[in-house]
Amino acid sequence: MNPALPQLGNFLPWLDLLGIAVFAASGALAARDKGDVVTAAFFALVTGVGGGTLRDLLIGAPVWWVHHPFVAALCLGVAVLIWFTPVRWWSGKALDWLDALGLAAYAVFGTAKALSFGIPPVPAALMGVLTACAGGILRDVLAGEPSSLLRPELYVTPAALAAGLHVALTLLGLPVFGAALIAATAGFALRAAAIVWRLKWPGYFGRS
Amino acid sequence: MNPALPQLGNFLPWLDLLGIAVFAASGALAARDKGDVVTAAFFALVTGVGGGTLRDLLIGAPVWWVHHPFVAALCLGVAVLIWFTPVRWWSGKALDWLDALGLAAYAVFGTAKALSFGIPPVPAALMGVLTACAGGILRDVLAGEPSSLLRPELYVTPAALAAGLHVALTLLGLPVFGAALIAATAGFALRAAAIVWRLKWPGYFGRS
Amino acid sequence: MNPALPQLGNFLPWLDLLGIAVFAASGALAARDKGDVVTAAFFALVTGVGGGTLRDLLIGAPVWWVHHPFVAALCLGVAVLIWFTPVRWWSGKALDWLDALGLAAYAVFGTAKALSFGIPPVPAALMGVLTACAGGILRDVLAGEPSSLLRPELYVTPAALAAGLHVALTLLGLPVFGAALIAATAGFALRAAAIVWRLKWPGYFGRS
Repeated sequence: MNPALPQLGNFLPWLDLLGIAVFAASGALAARDKGDVVTAAFFALVTGVGGGTLRDLLIGAPVWWVHHPFVAALCLGVAVLIWFTPVRWWSGKALDWLDALGLAAYAVFGTAKALSFGIPPVPAALMGVLTACAGGILRDVLAGEPSSLLRPELYVTPAALAAGLHVALTLLGLPVFGAALIAATAGFALRAAAIVWRLKWPGYFGRS
Repeated sequence: MNPALPQLGNFLPWLDLLGIAVFAASGALAARDKGDVVTAAFFALVTGVGGGTLRDLLIGAPVWWVHHPFVAALCLGVAVLIWFTPVRWWSGKALDWLDALGLAAYAVFGTAKALSFGIPPVPAALMGVLTACAGGILRDVLAGEPSSLLRPELYVTPAALAAGLHVALTLLGLPVFGAALIAATAGFALRAAAIVWRLKWPGYFGRS
Repeated sequence: MNPALPQLGNFLPWLDLLGIAVFAASGALAARDKGDVVTAAFFALVTGVGGGTLRDLLIGAPVWWVHHPFVAALCLGVAVLIWFTPVRWWSGKALDWLDALGLAAYAVFGTAKALSFGIPPVPAALMGVLTACAGGILRDVLAGEPSSLLRPELYVTPAALAAGLHVALTLLGLPVFGAALIAATAGFALRAAAIVWRLKWPGYFGRS
């Protein structure tokens, strides 16, 4: 449908669906203790498609899930799945890990889609970062939780690594599939390391 | 002006104005104890047009109130009216009831406008739900209140009922006026019942 | 690039860059005690370009910083500058004063750009107000702070003064440069007076 999308190859749209599904799951989990099944489905939808919606509005693309029934239904299905499965399947760090997957997938896909619409490299990478973080911000705002941006361990940095790496590797001539795979893996690995070892940057330099 | 809007008939734009006016009133009421009259007018504007703005951006329509001085002035007028009338007129459950009216009106109008722009049925209904909830979310975020999405009684469900019913009745061939009236009434009635009897869904299934 | 922008003259885009830079600074300052340098850069970007993004989406213009690498880099540079300079340079009221500058600059530029896209006077002024306040709202939501809209002293009013004055002076036939300078100065002066003397409107009229 969109003439620019074929440049993304057959692989990248799956990254987008992966990001949508795991952000939807993290949205449904955030609503689990606070609302009912319909509210959880609403959280799943907003968290799942929020980042992609922002990306499409920023680059001037039609908001793709609006024209595509399957994507919205995917979010609702994820919410129902989580609602009707035992709490122990999803407890503990599940939300953190789903969020890490979504962060890496969205950062790369957002960057790739921006590049395919002719956005210059630096803002394209920034848009990957923005849209990767947008779903989680929306989820936290809706749930009234402190923003996951402000967790002590690295959060925006892995998104920036994934987006920047994808731009750099693409500029170096790598095929989009390879660049995306390497960039998403690196971003996820850094976020995983941040979760496991509580990696963080040094604090504000000017304090002393 | 917009070639797609005539399909909405002469009735539906009034639903939109109703939604804008009552959300504007709920925004002004939320700011009443926290700010001044200009801040209240700002809250009224953002809450009143927030849902419709999101809807128009999502479906790729021009943001209609931006090209239409009367709509924005309506929000400001509502805010001034509320500011200069006695507190007892608006106390108690007034905000809840205005919000319920706006929820039902926006859910139906958002769905109908999305359908008139060629959006498929499922995302069209979801957009009605999203945009009906967006005004209240914005109001709560601006006011620093817990999101009305997380009230214990049904909130998203009545919006989903109104939006889904409008899509279903339209697909069944009802004229848009009749479908909208039935759907908005059903959504408002369910939200009213939820307020009066504190209706809620059972909690998270997987807890046990 | 944009055919409508020449009407803004050579002066006004500098107002936009000023607004972006000072909002970016206020975003980076808000993140300083809560995150790392990458998070601060993210806050600077979102706070800096948030208002302009909303403005461009509302009036149907392409989101200009997305097509313009320098603007986003400006936000990142401001964040790095603030991160690596001593805390005492930026303590106390620095955020308030930067926010006041950004408020006045964005209110006028947002109004002028809306007028240049053919938006009628009243919504054009309202869009100046909306977009001037949007950056600060986003910053406060991201940082989990109470919204600066709800500070006791005048906040929305100076934005409304700047935006309204720019529309009025332009309609009276003043050249856009003069109108913008007078309007931005008046808006900044009123916000400055509000900070210094804690100016406020009388509270809710209907309480008694």
